[in-house]
Amino acid sequence: MALITFMSDFGENDHYVSAVKAKMLAIDPELIIVDISHDITPFDITHGSFVLKSVFRDFPQGTIHLVAVNTLDEDNNNYIIALIEGHYFIGADNGLISLVSEKDPETIIKLNNPDIEASVFPTRDILARNAAMLAGGAAVNDLGQVTGDFKRLLGRQLKATKKQISGNVIRVDHFGNAITNIDQEIFNILKKGRGFVVKFGREEIPNIHSTYASVDPGECFVVFNSNGLLEIGINKGSASELMGLSFDSPVVINFEEPAP
Amino acid sequence: MALITFMSDFGENDHYVSAVKAKMLAIDPELIIVDISHDITPFDITHGSFVLKSVFRDFPQGTIHLVAVNTLDEDNNNYIIALIEGHYFIGADNGLISLVSEKDPETIIKLNNPDIEASVFPTRDILARNAAMLAGGAAVNDLGQVTGDFKRLLGRQLKATKKQISGNVIRVDHFGNAITNIDQEIFNILKKGRGFVVKFGREEIPNIHSTYASVDPGECFVVFNSNGLLEIGINKGSASELMGLSFDSPVVINFEEPAP
Amino acid sequence: MALITFMSDFGENDHYVSAVKAKMLAIDPELIIVDISHDITPFDITHGSFVLKSVFRDFPQGTIHLVAVNTLDEDNNNYIIALIEGHYFIGADNGLISLVSEKDPETIIKLNNPDIEASVFPTRDILARNAAMLAGGAAVNDLGQVTGDFKRLLGRQLKATKKQISGNVIRVDHFGNAITNIDQEIFNILKKGRGFVVKFGREEIPNIHSTYASVDPGECFVVFNSNGLLEIGINKGSASELMGLSFDSPVVINFEEPAP
Repeated sequence: MALITFMSDFGENDHYVSAVKAKMLAIDPELIIVDISHDITPFDITHGSFVLKSVFRDFPQGTIHLVAVNTLDEDNNNYIIALIEGHYFIGADNGLISLVSEKDPETIIKLNNPDIEASVFPTRDILARNAAMLAGGAAVNDLGQVTGDFKRLLGRQLKATKKQISGNVIRVDHFGNAITNIDQEIFNILKKGRGFVVKFGREEIPNIHSTYASVDPGECFVVFNSNGLLEIGINKGSASELMGLSFDSPVVINFEEPAP
Repeated sequence: MALITFMSDFGENDHYVSAVKAKMLAIDPELIIVDISHDITPFDITHGSFVLKSVFRDFPQGTIHLVAVNTLDEDNNNYIIALIEGHYFIGADNGLISLVSEKDPETIIKLNNPDIEASVFPTRDILARNAAMLAGGAAVNDLGQVTGDFKRLLGRQLKATKKQISGNVIRVDHFGNAITNIDQEIFNILKKGRGFVVKFGREEIPNIHSTYASVDPGECFVVFNSNGLLEIGINKGSASELMGLSFDSPVVINFEEPAP
Repeated sequence: MALITFMSDFGENDHYVSAVKAKMLAIDPELIIVDISHDITPFDITHGSFVLKSVFRDFPQGTIHLVAVNTLDEDNNNYIIALIEGHYFIGADNGLISLVSEKDPETIIKLNNPDIEASVFPTRDILARNAAMLAGGAAVNDLGQVTGDFKRLLGRQLKATKKQISGNVIRVDHFGNAITNIDQEIFNILKKGRGFVVKFGREEIPNIHSTYASVDPGECFVVFNSNGLLEIGINKGSASELMGLSFDSPVVINFEEPAP
């Protein structure tokens, strides 16, 4: 049976998370439900999509990802299942799901559900049931109508030239590390054996470290993290607090001129 | 096998929650344990009972709800199992369980346990074992003596007349929404097609919205939530912060005079 | 199949915890994974070892405890499995595991893994796989080389004489209770029927209470907790806030002179 993951902005001190799980387990108590996080900043699609994008590929293909962040939007009668890179994403059509992958969905289903207009808790009343049915073997096409498109949002884009990669902090994590949208692959393509300097705030770092502990405690490190994104931190400290890095802060890599 | 839910005021950064689960899983590793919340405000029976009352009916009948909020009271040698609306509640006899339903328990069992007086961690040492045994098929009557009554507390009561419903905020949730004890059923009975105004703080709202997103971001909404309770909030904002609503704040609905 | 527990300093609002679980469930979706806590203070081996030491014996023998606190140290290519008191502990060789028991490990295995040097997320890339394989029945000796020793740290030691036990607060818990390293067994051996006074801050308490509720709300209690450690608190209040007790605060028990 497929795994179900569950991510929300519901927090941990209300009944909302368990109400959704209860509805799924009432359909099949053997379902395996893995929490991604329920501490997504309320209504923050950017935070939610970053977390889900960072982890969904670690789950087996066929996993069902139940997404409940900012679920009650103006268009709150649009709920979808999108099949992307072999994973099912089920949630409100608010753009979050469009941010988890650069690849186009293989299928998008608009859930048909007579209760949709009536519910003020659609994650419990609509999404939970559909997720449980999908995990139980229902064909995704039986849960709604195939639709051509879904709401698409654009993530923070990188600017890259032969001289410079210009990016931004897209997430400050639990440790105060600042994760950027600068991708290791693009860096490797552009570098071509040249020297470079990573610039952010008042810092200029002339190299990228191999691990978080390549520098002494209290010193600044720059690594490509486990998702291949440039990450800035302070060993045993908080880069966010100590260097003022926050969401959207600019981070630039300047390459040396090639030898003439 | 019956599901077990687990709610406590133990927090997330100690060993208390996992110690209780360990004891249950040591009896049967196949038990399915669903966390309701472990971030109930310490000792706060009102918070705990609100959360449990809001969600227990979403679980299948026969579910066992392990409740550990303010478990160490003066009378800490009274531990009970109450069967209410087809659900088992197991916890200290401190009144919390009496608040989860208006219906009388079908059965109340006082746990008999030689270790009760000795334990300073009864949730782990007494409740966990009994919950696991009940889930494993033990008859509830074998776990203690049937008793006629348990500690009863009274929730915040509504005052309702033909002219007015007068209630209170009974919970401010993770989103800063203020949930009241004003029930949709009573409202519908009293309304009789008349106009009305909902009053709280300095606000007067002449209607009840159908969803959280019926108003623009930053505007105040009033809805009946998924549990049929009147809820006041600000779309994408915090009603608690912005309008000063907190636990116990008065909320009143005044009905128009009927046509003469 | 053996249970897996999981404790980390990863926090709850990133993808780190679920990435590790995903890797384990991808190997075997039937694995039973129990969270101990993911809110261990970042990098805090003392906090982590206290929590794990307090709870591991509540799990069945053979349980696998996946430990991820301060995993990325200078020596971040040393990952081990230690078999202690019939439990498997898998994590970085940073000393945390040495603090969970006074007993010597029965076996210590240094994981051999070609990816170890390359990974910046070894808990996901190395530890998760090995934990899942161990739970699935792999022999621990097949996962690496037996090694003679591991990094050993020394916990805060007690000074005990016939006249006095001198200890420290080793943890302030979620309720603000101050847990010390003063052990009930040593206390019982030294007491020999004599009177005594427990001293901390400006307080002098001439007895040890049997339960947390032996004193009135707002009053100070001193109990031996469920792990046999002396614990100081305020009934329904926070000893940490109200009496200024914090990590490392001295706590002393002075015994009366024996009758001449």
